[in-house]
Amino acid sequence: MGKVYLVGAGPGAPDLLTLRAARLLEEADVVFHDALVHPDTLALAKRARLIDVGKRYGKVSTEQRFINRALIEAARTHTVVVRLKGGDPMIFGRAQEELDALAEARVECEVVPGVTAALAGAASLQVSLTKRGVARNVAFVTARHGKGEPETEWLATARAADTVALYMASGQAAEIARALIAAGRRPDTPTALVENASLPGERRLFFTLAELAAGRGAEFTGGPVLMAVGEVFRGALQQFQSRIETHEHQRQVHHRNHH
Amino acid sequence: MGKVYLVGAGPGAPDLLTLRAARLLEEADVVFHDALVHPDTLALAKRARLIDVGKRYGKVSTEQRFINRALIEAARTHTVVVRLKGGDPMIFGRAQEELDALAEARVECEVVPGVTAALAGAASLQVSLTKRGVARNVAFVTARHGKGEPETEWLATARAADTVALYMASGQAAEIARALIAAGRRPDTPTALVENASLPGERRLFFTLAELAAGRGAEFTGGPVLMAVGEVFRGALQQFQSRIETHEHQRQVHHRNHH
Repeated sequence: MGKVYLVGAGPGAPDLLTLRAARLLEEADVVFHDALVHPDTLALAKRARLIDVGKRYGKVSTEQRFINRALIEAARTHTVVVRLKGGDPMIFGRAQEELDALAEARVECEVVPGVTAALAGAASLQVSLTKRGVARNVAFVTARHGKGEPETEWLATARAADTVALYMASGQAAEIARALIAAGRRPDTPTALVENASLPGERRLFFTLAELAAGRGAEFTGGPVLMAVGEVFRGALQQFQSRIETHEHQRQVHHRNHH
Repeated sequence: MGKVYLVGAGPGAPDLLTLRAARLLEEADVVFHDALVHPDTLALAKRARLIDVGKRYGKVSTEQRFINRALIEAARTHTVVVRLKGGDPMIFGRAQEELDALAEARVECEVVPGVTAALAGAASLQVSLTKRGVARNVAFVTARHGKGEPETEWLATARAADTVALYMASGQAAEIARALIAAGRRPDTPTALVENASLPGERRLFFTLAELAAGRGAEFTGGPVLMAVGEVFRGALQQFQSRIETHEHQRQVHHRNHH
C-alpha cells in the first residue's frame, strides 16, 4: 500500500515550489495535477505517469468523486502518489474532500504546504499585507459561492479585516468593489489587482474601490486574478496614479509639439 | 550597487524552503537572518557572511532602524544581499519598514514569498482551512498588540471569519479563547494548537474554546504556537477526544488488573 502526498505547487513560477515538493515529484510514480500547474514543475516528475484532473466549471462534484477514487486506486498499486494542487492545498484547494476519502479508505496521507497566491501577489506588489499601525490582520476570501451558500456570506469577513485578499476575482472586481462599499468600506480604499502573479505575463494595477465599482480595472486577459484591498496599498496606489499622470502629461506635451 | 532580496525561509523545516530561496542563499554575499531560521537553511549560504538580526522583545524599534541601515550599507558593497525572514515576509514579518527604507535609499529590492506558518500548521493537522459548506474564508490574525493599538482590534476580524489562524499565540490560548467567547464565538468551537509546526518537536492538541478558556492547552514547551479556530476542526477534535478517552479507559483497565 502506497502513500498519497497532497502537495502545493505554489503560485505559478516553477521555482516557487518547495524543496520537499520537488523531491516528491522526482520520486513520484503517479502525479494527479490541476490544470494550471507549470509545465516545468510537471517536468520534475521524470518517473511518473502524469494525470491531468483539472476541473471544469460546472462539472465539479462528479469529477471530485472520480479524483477521490483514482487516488485510492493509485495508492493500492504504487508507492508514491502525488496530488499536485495550485498554490497551497489547504486554502481554496478542496483538499478536505480528498483527505476524508483517503482516511476512510485507510490510505496513508501527508500534506506538503505551498506558497499561496496572496503571498506571491504581495511579494510582486512589494507591499506587506500586515503593517504596524495600519493592518494587524488579513483575511483570505473568495466571493465565488457554492450552491446553497448565501451570496454575501464573505462580506462580513471582508468588511472586518484590515487587509483582504480575494482569490479567484477574475471578472468580478466591479461587483466585489460595489459590495464592499455597500458593506461600509470607504470608497477611497486602495485596491491592488494582480493577474498571473509570479508568472511572466504578470500584470499589476491599483485603483480605489470607487474606481473599480465604476468599471475601471477590467483590462485583464483571462489569467487568474488576485484582488487585495486595504490601507496598506495607499502608497503603492499613489505611486501608480502619479506614474499614470506623468505618462498622460508627456503624451499631451508630445501631442502639442507634433501637431 | 547590489540588490536586496527579502526572502521567506518558510515555517521551520529546511525542505519547506522554495527552490528560488535556496538558489539565492547559494549566491548570497551577505545574509541577514531572523533568530529562528533552521541551521540547515543557513548552511545553504556557503559563500555568505551570516548576520543574526533576530530581534529581542522590548528592543524592537532601535534594532529595526539598525537592520534598515545595515541592509542599505550591504547593498553598497555586495551584489546579492539576502534578508531571510521566518515564514513569509509579507505577513507578520515587518517587511514594509525595510522595503520603505530600501526604496528611499534607491536600493533595488525583490521579495521572495515563503510558506507561512498557518499553512504549515494546516498541513500537519491534515485539516483544510477552507471547506465547502463549512468555511469559505480564513483570517490570519495576531492578538499581540503594538504600542498605542487597541487591545481588542483583532477581535472583529476573528469573530467574523469562518476560520481564524492566530499567529504568535504562545502562552495566550486561554486569554484568546475567553476574548473570542466574549465576542460571540460559540464556546464549543473546535480549536487546534500546533507548536513548532513542521519541526521534529511538533505538537498538536485540540480543544473547544471553552476548554481553553478554562486553562486547558497550557502544556507547551516554549516553541512558537499557532492557534487555529473554526468548525473545520470539528472532526479532528472528536478524533482527538476519542483517542484520549480510549487511552484513559486502557489506563484504568490496566490499573484495575494490576492492583
